[in-house]
Amino acid sequence: MTKWVYKFGDGKAEGRASDRNLLGGKGANLAEMSSIGIPVPPGFTISTEVCTYYYANNKSFPNDLKEQVEEGIKHCESIVGRKFADPANPLLFSVRSGARISMPGMMDTVLNLGLNDETVKGLAKASGDERFAYDSYRRFLQMYSDVVLGVKHENFEHVLTAAKEAKGYKSDTDMNVDDLKALIVEYKKIGEKFGKPVPQDPIEQLWGGIGAVFMSWMVDRAIYYRKLNDIPEDWGTAVNVQTMVFGNAGDDSATGVCFSRDPSTGKNAFYGEFLIKAQGEDVVAGIRTPQQISKEGKKERGSTLPCMEEAMPDLYKQLCDIREKLEKHYHDMQDMEFTIQNGKLYMLQTRNGKRTAAAAVKMAVDMVNEGLIDKKTALLRVEPKQLDDLLHPTLDPKAKKEAIKDGRLLTQALNASPGAAVGQVVFSADDAEKWAAAGKKVVLVRVETSPEDIHGMHSSQGILTARGGMTSHAAVVARGMGTPAVCGASDVKVDYAAKTMNIKGVTVKEGDVITLDGTTGEVINGAIALKDAELTGDFGLFMGWADEVRKLKVRTNADTPRDAAKAMEFGAQGIGLCRTEHMFFDPMRIKHMREMILAETEEARRAALAKLLPYQREDFKELYVALQGQPVNIRLLDPPLHEFLPQNEADQAEIARELGISVDAVKARVNQLHEANPMLGLRGCRLGITYPEITEMQAQAIFEAAVEATKVLGKQVEPEIMVPLIDTKKELDLVKASIDKMAALVMDKAGKFPYHVGTMIEMPRAALTADKVAETAEYFSFGTNDLTQTTLGMSRDDAGAFLPDYVAKGIFAKDPFKSIDEEGVGQLVEMAAEKGRKTRPNIKLGICGEHGGDPATIDFCHRVGLTYVSCSPFRVPIARLAAAQAAVRNA
Amino acid sequence: MTKWVYKFGDGKAEGRASDRNLLGGKGANLAEMSSIGIPVPPGFTISTEVCTYYYANNKSFPNDLKEQVEEGIKHCESIVGRKFADPANPLLFSVRSGARISMPGMMDTVLNLGLNDETVKGLAKASGDERFAYDSYRRFLQMYSDVVLGVKHENFEHVLTAAKEAKGYKSDTDMNVDDLKALIVEYKKIGEKFGKPVPQDPIEQLWGGIGAVFMSWMVDRAIYYRKLNDIPEDWGTAVNVQTMVFGNAGDDSATGVCFSRDPSTGKNAFYGEFLIKAQGEDVVAGIRTPQQISKEGKKERGSTLPCMEEAMPDLYKQLCDIREKLEKHYHDMQDMEFTIQNGKLYMLQTRNGKRTAAAAVKMAVDMVNEGLIDKKTALLRVEPKQLDDLLHPTLDPKAKKEAIKDGRLLTQALNASPGAAVGQVVFSADDAEKWAAAGKKVVLVRVETSPEDIHGMHSSQGILTARGGMTSHAAVVARGMGTPAVCGASDVKVDYAAKTMNIKGVTVKEGDVITLDGTTGEVINGAIALKDAELTGDFGLFMGWADEVRKLKVRTNADTPRDAAKAMEFGAQGIGLCRTEHMFFDPMRIKHMREMILAETEEARRAALAKLLPYQREDFKELYVALQGQPVNIRLLDPPLHEFLPQNEADQAEIARELGISVDAVKARVNQLHEANPMLGLRGCRLGITYPEITEMQAQAIFEAAVEATKVLGKQVEPEIMVPLIDTKKELDLVKASIDKMAALVMDKAGKFPYHVGTMIEMPRAALTADKVAETAEYFSFGTNDLTQTTLGMSRDDAGAFLPDYVAKGIFAKDPFKSIDEEGVGQLVEMAAEKGRKTRPNIKLGICGEHGGDPATIDFCHRVGLTYVSCSPFRVPIARLAAAQAAVRNA
Repeated sequence: MTKWVYKFGDGKAEGRASDRNLLGGKGANLAEMSSIGIPVPPGFTISTEVCTYYYANNKSFPNDLKEQVEEGIKHCESIVGRKFADPANPLLFSVRSGARISMPGMMDTVLNLGLNDETVKGLAKASGDERFAYDSYRRFLQMYSDVVLGVKHENFEHVLTAAKEAKGYKSDTDMNVDDLKALIVEYKKIGEKFGKPVPQDPIEQLWGGIGAVFMSWMVDRAIYYRKLNDIPEDWGTAVNVQTMVFGNAGDDSATGVCFSRDPSTGKNAFYGEFLIKAQGEDVVAGIRTPQQISKEGKKERGSTLPCMEEAMPDLYKQLCDIREKLEKHYHDMQDMEFTIQNGKLYMLQTRNGKRTAAAAVKMAVDMVNEGLIDKKTALLRVEPKQLDDLLHPTLDPKAKKEAIKDGRLLTQALNASPGAAVGQVVFSADDAEKWAAAGKKVVLVRVETSPEDIHGMHSSQGILTARGGMTSHAAVVARGMGTPAVCGASDVKVDYAAKTMNIKGVTVKEGDVITLDGTTGEVINGAIALKDAELTGDFGLFMGWADEVRKLKVRTNADTPRDAAKAMEFGAQGIGLCRTEHMFFDPMRIKHMREMILAETEEARRAALAKLLPYQREDFKELYVALQGQPVNIRLLDPPLHEFLPQNEADQAEIARELGISVDAVKARVNQLHEANPMLGLRGCRLGITYPEITEMQAQAIFEAAVEATKVLGKQVEPEIMVPLIDTKKELDLVKASIDKMAALVMDKAGKFPYHVGTMIEMPRAALTADKVAETAEYFSFGTNDLTQTTLGMSRDDAGAFLPDYVAKGIFAKDPFKSIDEEGVGQLVEMAAEKGRKTRPNIKLGICGEHGGDPATIDFCHRVGLTYVSCSPFRVPIARLAAAQAAVRNA
Repeated sequence: MTKWVYKFGDGKAEGRASDRNLLGGKGANLAEMSSIGIPVPPGFTISTEVCTYYYANNKSFPNDLKEQVEEGIKHCESIVGRKFADPANPLLFSVRSGARISMPGMMDTVLNLGLNDETVKGLAKASGDERFAYDSYRRFLQMYSDVVLGVKHENFEHVLTAAKEAKGYKSDTDMNVDDLKALIVEYKKIGEKFGKPVPQDPIEQLWGGIGAVFMSWMVDRAIYYRKLNDIPEDWGTAVNVQTMVFGNAGDDSATGVCFSRDPSTGKNAFYGEFLIKAQGEDVVAGIRTPQQISKEGKKERGSTLPCMEEAMPDLYKQLCDIREKLEKHYHDMQDMEFTIQNGKLYMLQTRNGKRTAAAAVKMAVDMVNEGLIDKKTALLRVEPKQLDDLLHPTLDPKAKKEAIKDGRLLTQALNASPGAAVGQVVFSADDAEKWAAAGKKVVLVRVETSPEDIHGMHSSQGILTARGGMTSHAAVVARGMGTPAVCGASDVKVDYAAKTMNIKGVTVKEGDVITLDGTTGEVINGAIALKDAELTGDFGLFMGWADEVRKLKVRTNADTPRDAAKAMEFGAQGIGLCRTEHMFFDPMRIKHMREMILAETEEARRAALAKLLPYQREDFKELYVALQGQPVNIRLLDPPLHEFLPQNEADQAEIARELGISVDAVKARVNQLHEANPMLGLRGCRLGITYPEITEMQAQAIFEAAVEATKVLGKQVEPEIMVPLIDTKKELDLVKASIDKMAALVMDKAGKFPYHVGTMIEMPRAALTADKVAETAEYFSFGTNDLTQTTLGMSRDDAGAFLPDYVAKGIFAKDPFKSIDEEGVGQLVEMAAEKGRKTRPNIKLGICGEHGGDPATIDFCHRVGLTYVSCSPFRVPIARLAAAQAAVRNA
């Protein structure tokens, strides 16, 4: 018999924390907590294997599941001493999902399961609180209808609002028992109206709840979240059935969420929020503004409500002990949920807490210093992509001070997710997505957010909500995304219909620009200048550890001294790709470039190239000087020539006038250079083979620049010249002959100097014949952008029409232009690396596509033994950490 | 000491026929003939290794060459009993090139070497013919100046013409000794004028001649011929130095060229031409119209001049004996050169003769029947590409008869190269090339052709010359190219300046259309309808032998019943590629196709597709019926959708009107579908994944057609459905799901039937992951067009800008779009074949790119073990033979 159900409670458990894949994160941790003596309401977990079975078998359950669930129920009954479905004193259950990895807000939950017209009376009697019982019943009916039966909760909210209005009530809490009983009658009518009444039989309720959890694994928002976070669909979810405890059982009851360290800053301080007389979802839903756990938190967040340390000092102490016990047990910051029922504390969940990048770095460093973890573990604690948050600008304090002085501060609320954002206001997730797609920077303003808003949050520079605390949906998701957010700004009055918001009398319309400071919670009217991040302190220490363990060097893709300097600041170890084409677009240069392209003889081309030479030489010299002797890998001209010619008639006429040739001649050349598939046309080394004089000019400029820079720096500059788009060794030989010729020419005047000629491996044929190419090439740089385009036969410019659909359908697990397609493109890279090393054992191997900054690709590069990765400047720290993680993971 | 020089003569030789690589074809055969007792003037061959040395060592000779050449001279002197440079009775030499493979007209020759102001007197005395001696000296001066010293022969012709005019002579033969002596003085002045006098020292003359042969290996026309014929540059040429014999020594002297069988028809009859009192080059240069060798030839060619059999019966008999001896010795048809000096016969050369396709087939079949060769040897005797000549149309006899009746026959001359041609007249090779490049069909008309005209001959449909015989340059080259030619049409008076020709009073201008019948020698004014070739008799027998030995099946690429029928007639074993896109361009269909593309909902798309379904079903049914149960591999829609939409405004407006939508909507969709690199865009299986309804319609049409065709034929049709542009197994799974769904649907009504789903392997990724793709694909078809484009990153549409240069520079040995790039693309094909077989041992593997009809590629396909090749209908016999040759060669 397969074991489908795992019981826990009363200091024991059938599962463990390491059973995450089987029991989901929540179930595994409930089992673990129960085992180590943390007070946990008893329950049982239906494993993820049931979910897999469910979807593999046309949404049906295994035969022996029923029996095991019944055992689970008996297990809870025996510990609690009450019986499920007992009309006299019913045991109630919560039913929750629990996937392998926490997916906040993604999965549905049903509470108070087991209530019906009979058991509600028993609950009333047993609790001595009839209002509590009927309110619980009402909540159950609404939640069950929504989550299990698909009758949208708006239907119920509408009736509730009407009932309150009829009586003149302001809040739900104004409703008395009779009101609630009348409401329950109305609620039942809704169920009947939709043909979906809530079953009275508690067992039927339970199976409905279990099925709803499994079904919710495949709802759109869950699929979207998984896609966003690279979570495979076949992992499935577990179902946790747990004895209900009530944070709303009376004034000696409460419910809360807490973090063993501050998830926003990483500070080693107990931080959390709770609500007295409230049920679980009330805290995270942001309906009531929660109270702080600790005095310190209360002070820091400027809360005026009594904190738990003040209101329930004994329970606070118990919670502090649990905090310590759990963090030591898990060696990581814990995100915990608790409920206090009639003065007794229960832990409902613990998990490794999500955290901001800054917090992740600080915690990693602190925990190493505290001896809680070692450095290698610390390195794995920060998601490389998160580092991005630390690198991006904050508000210029001076500019902000002035803005505030000018009265532009609209309000200050919760600093829910750090960083600064400037953008145009939009009021819906759909608009955010649309405007962003049109190239606009937007700030999404919502009363509160829900999982349906994720796509819009993802498209926004920043998020502002009128309701909700630090653990509200908006705050949690924004931190996860690294998007700045200010939450719970109760001064903000949103009018969705008018697409405006009013903040203390100031009206901000859709499209108006505002600035958010997610680090302080400030909301400012208009734009404020941004300031670059600083990379010292814990960050510097942490990155130092990364540099100690990584095997891959990290270079940067940069064509300007400015970009190069930024990358060096971020820790780049040279330039892996300097594209020379961007240097030709300056107005003075483009003229000569066009003259060269329009020339009809080699002589005329050489004359135009001679005018470009001094510019190129100066460009390269500046780069060499900026790099201070670190290597600079310069790629010869790559794009097709038509990219340099104007396509419209007016510009063509102007060029014709400037160059003193006929407009028809210009047009003819533009037409002649037109290509059906420019990606596969006359570009790369094909240019240098067709027009060797272009290569000669560039090589001369590089060598002369290196000679000059060597003098300036007082150390030897060793040029690296990279030939693009090679298919065959012979092409490389031909281009290298031009390069060698110019080297000899420059050496005649300036004396000998070292230099290196390498090639891009970006065509499948070059990869397939890399053993031969390596006879000439001193180094390879994998141009995985073009290699992906050719290997997949997929133009990056055109793939937008089908690639998102391809990723959605699982044809590619990830966008192959962002993260290397290991199975296909990766196979070629590995093959070429092996063949290259066979010919030239010490061949230098790099990667310089977009992929060079992608952590998964960097892990691959480490595994196939590349020498370095090269990425855009802002990706350099990400690459350094990813390289370190690859070294730790693959040790 | 390296042996550089190989002597022959007097019934002995240091080399053999098998030394072709070392001695060149001519040298090896001279040695062989000498060894077997054929009368050959003594001589020696300087090996091809000297040529290699010469180019590797800055155009210098090995040190020990001089000594060996001197030995060679002594060898000749001792046999002939005369001395080189002896003023009393000089021995003279011819110096000729001789490469491994015969390159007619490409290499230069110097005759009469050893003559100077003194030796000419000795020659006069010894021969008793002063005129002969001075004429030989004159010829030598002109030839040596032209070939060795680079003083163009026009300079001498000019003086010669002036001298003749001054005396009122019509022909060279009118010149007497004094005229010739005076001419020699003038010739010497020309040499002095250019600073390049002919050396008087015979030894210096000899070394100059040897150097000139080696230099001529690298002249443009030789390079062009090698490129055209895939001859590697590093083979080099040998130099043959041979004792001169004189066909112009008197009326008992002659020179001629003969073939052991008729090179035009293949008939086993002795055929050749000769000229009495003439030197070697006179026959092939076409200056005098030659006489026939045999009575039979005289009759057949309608010659009125006495033939050799009549004029020199004894010598004719000797020649007949030699013909028989040589053909039996070489087991192949021989192309021989001979000279008769004062009644003594000498053989100057023998080689396997070039022949027309028809002759090649007939000889191969006859020689097998005669027991001279076996079938496998016979199969290697026909160049597969030559077969093309037999497949192409001849003139419709009825139409020709009427044309002649209408007085349109302009003239009849030598049937120099068979086949019919219709085209516009041009009068220069350059014009032929230009006009052909502009898409025109041209007939090149020349007085005579020379090696400089080859590029133009290659561009022409047919060739007409006013002078020259069956062995003239024009005739030999045209037969080699398979281009119809009529030669020696002395009625044709060409006026190059006016760009006209006059034929018996009729003036034909440049651009006028004429028709040539190369099989009969007729020239007809205007165009005549062409008729298809017949494929029976020897051809059928020969192809039957090919079918017996080949391992590869041959299918065809065809989309219409007409093409399919043609291919079946040519021996195709099914359709390897049926492209479905061409079926949508019919006016009625394109309308529905556009409606489908412009539809904004799946519903609307399905409605339009429903209209296309009956057409597709009918198309497929007709194909199935035409194929009579042979397999038909149908590829699903492949091209990007924008190919079906009009790009110009007028057509867009018309569509808008037809479909009742706005012009802007049409334009918007056209713009939306525009792609930067359509080759790499939304096409192939990507269409079927984005719009599964397209796949569904096509699958339904295929299955319903198969069901209907099965009924019509009374045998089971098994559809093969091929999915294009696969990168991953998952894509194939998704498209196959659509296909399977429609199969089930059709089976519901029509009962079960077998069908097969396969895929194109045309993306590198598919090849790299072929083991996985084969889990789903029942067969692969290598789409080597696209596989070449992606593997090389080279768009066939755009490569014209650089690929010819790439081939010229040796980056690719051949155009990789014509003959597979074995090292790169071939590596992927081999890898995919292996991986595919690993997963599915009996997987069917085919190739369906342009390469499927290329003999070199077919050899490759045989070696990697493909199941079949598929090519255009007219290539089917070529592929059958190439497959047989591959089987023989790789046995």
